[in-house]
Amino acid sequence: MASTINRQITLARYPEGSPVEADFELTESNLPVAGPGQVLCRTRFLSLDPYMRSQIAGRHISGTIAPGDLMRGEAVCEVVESNTSAFPVGATVRCMAGWQEYSVHEADQVQKVNPDVQPESYALSLMGMTGLTAWAAMVWQAAVAEGDGVLIPAVTGGVGTAAAQFCLNRGARVIGIAGGDEKCRFAVDELGIEACINRKEEDVAQRLDELFPSGMDVYFDLIGGELLNQASARLALNARVILCGLMADYNSATRSPGPPPGNWIRSRAIVHGLVVYDFESRRDEFIAACLPDLQAGKLKQREDISQGVKSAPEAFCRLMRGENFGKVIVAM
Amino acid sequence: MASTINRQITLARYPEGSPVEADFELTESNLPVAGPGQVLCRTRFLSLDPYMRSQIAGRHISGTIAPGDLMRGEAVCEVVESNTSAFPVGATVRCMAGWQEYSVHEADQVQKVNPDVQPESYALSLMGMTGLTAWAAMVWQAAVAEGDGVLIPAVTGGVGTAAAQFCLNRGARVIGIAGGDEKCRFAVDELGIEACINRKEEDVAQRLDELFPSGMDVYFDLIGGELLNQASARLALNARVILCGLMADYNSATRSPGPPPGNWIRSRAIVHGLVVYDFESRRDEFIAACLPDLQAGKLKQREDISQGVKSAPEAFCRLMRGENFGKVIVAM
Repeated sequence: MASTINRQITLARYPEGSPVEADFELTESNLPVAGPGQVLCRTRFLSLDPYMRSQIAGRHISGTIAPGDLMRGEAVCEVVESNTSAFPVGATVRCMAGWQEYSVHEADQVQKVNPDVQPESYALSLMGMTGLTAWAAMVWQAAVAEGDGVLIPAVTGGVGTAAAQFCLNRGARVIGIAGGDEKCRFAVDELGIEACINRKEEDVAQRLDELFPSGMDVYFDLIGGELLNQASARLALNARVILCGLMADYNSATRSPGPPPGNWIRSRAIVHGLVVYDFESRRDEFIAACLPDLQAGKLKQREDISQGVKSAPEAFCRLMRGENFGKVIVAM
Repeated sequence: MASTINRQITLARYPEGSPVEADFELTESNLPVAGPGQVLCRTRFLSLDPYMRSQIAGRHISGTIAPGDLMRGEAVCEVVESNTSAFPVGATVRCMAGWQEYSVHEADQVQKVNPDVQPESYALSLMGMTGLTAWAAMVWQAAVAEGDGVLIPAVTGGVGTAAAQFCLNRGARVIGIAGGDEKCRFAVDELGIEACINRKEEDVAQRLDELFPSGMDVYFDLIGGELLNQASARLALNARVILCGLMADYNSATRSPGPPPGNWIRSRAIVHGLVVYDFESRRDEFIAACLPDLQAGKLKQREDISQGVKSAPEAFCRLMRGENFGKVIVAM
């Protein structure tokens, strides 16, 4: 056992708007002890995601985080103590470890990680919850098919990158949106999408008019707010809109309204609300469908990895300012 | 031939807000003449519908009506002159006759009326476009099933009445909304729905909380505006929302925003934009499915029938003020 101390990040106070590092606190506690049937896990990779801001605001379906509470999150861990035959010491598992170095779990709260998923951090990104989110949205809900024109915001982020590649591999035409030239270049040159709108410098509505002269077939909404309005006004007939994230609202105390419903009537849109938890039972199906492409090098994930649990607040604040570049992960 | 004069209603000027009779003009012209392959039709029943207000405002997908233009609309007519073997003199047909007594049509712009649909005006209401709208929404899109809790606004109107009965016949629990006690009594006592909210006297949001303590499974949106917000905040898991009408906006120069998308994410809603024209090819299938219930007396339609083409403006203005009671039809 390398340590007897467990470093953790708790919420210090409710952020006002975009969170700052002082909204979080680094605390230390003794190493927890695995009880009967439990495992003690050491975190190797922790996933940071925008929905956590919504948990802090008390608006997320997974529950609320209040000052003093441990920040929650999914992680890939190594089992370092085990009182269950299901997960021997040394096993690599996925669990809701939270923002801390060590955590204790009941055996049924821990999942095996498919050893074919490499690098291991991909179990949190491309082949993890963000990948599953993108697959549920683009494949199971929107049924993206060859020739569909798809708009994907935050296209260099965790969910966006996965979605873009899943769509490209199905023969769709993908237009992305990202914050900055470097991200846009990556999206076009590395991911291979057709074009990427730099939302910080370009007129998004005008670019959408140029890039989708006949309207878009699929809009994957990770944002809400004005972009949802702009996309909904530019849908092709029989478009699909997947409502999944609310980045435009996460830092705000108020909630943006949705687009005028007439836009969706005119395009005969089908709009799906997506919560990835509903698809947990199909995770293995998703991984099995993607593994051949992953192993053939046709799927990749840029990761924005910081080191040590103490780096989590800064990494999360960057994420909530849109300054991350790739899926945000904390390595420990 | 009973007449050599064709009385017509044209748009006199763009209405401001809710239309008034002076926005329309009664004009007279000579009887049109059926050319080769054409039929001359005498209107027996003309359908008046809220979407016409949207045509006047230039916001309807079927096109715009400008001052001086004939008001458009679907009608059941008798063929009084025929130059096509497809429709002999005396045939009862359905066509886009407009607000006038006589109209000329190409043979392929005229449809036979199923003689089993009685009374004949039902070809414009329960077994016509309003019925088809309700069937497409509740049966084909929302797939209403036994036990579903369904909210239907304007429940004594053309589309609402049809939708309520289709849902009841499938074993759903139907809650309606109507403007006034008399309409609400009719909806409960005659249509047989469980409860009807009087939107003019009751607190709609509070009544929805009482009537749908676990949320509604289906909301059939004929209204938009605040009611769409209120319903969307009270959806059960896996709810379906059918966006079909915008009564809240038809008289307005602006368009109401939609509900915050988070409400639809949380409920994993599936939202469909509905334009009834898309289902025209399935009209016979719809009528065949409904005829047994119609002939068994299990489907009925209250109609708000006025007499003569000159009554159309007043009837339409009442409709746009929500003062009609039943499907609005002009008999000639």
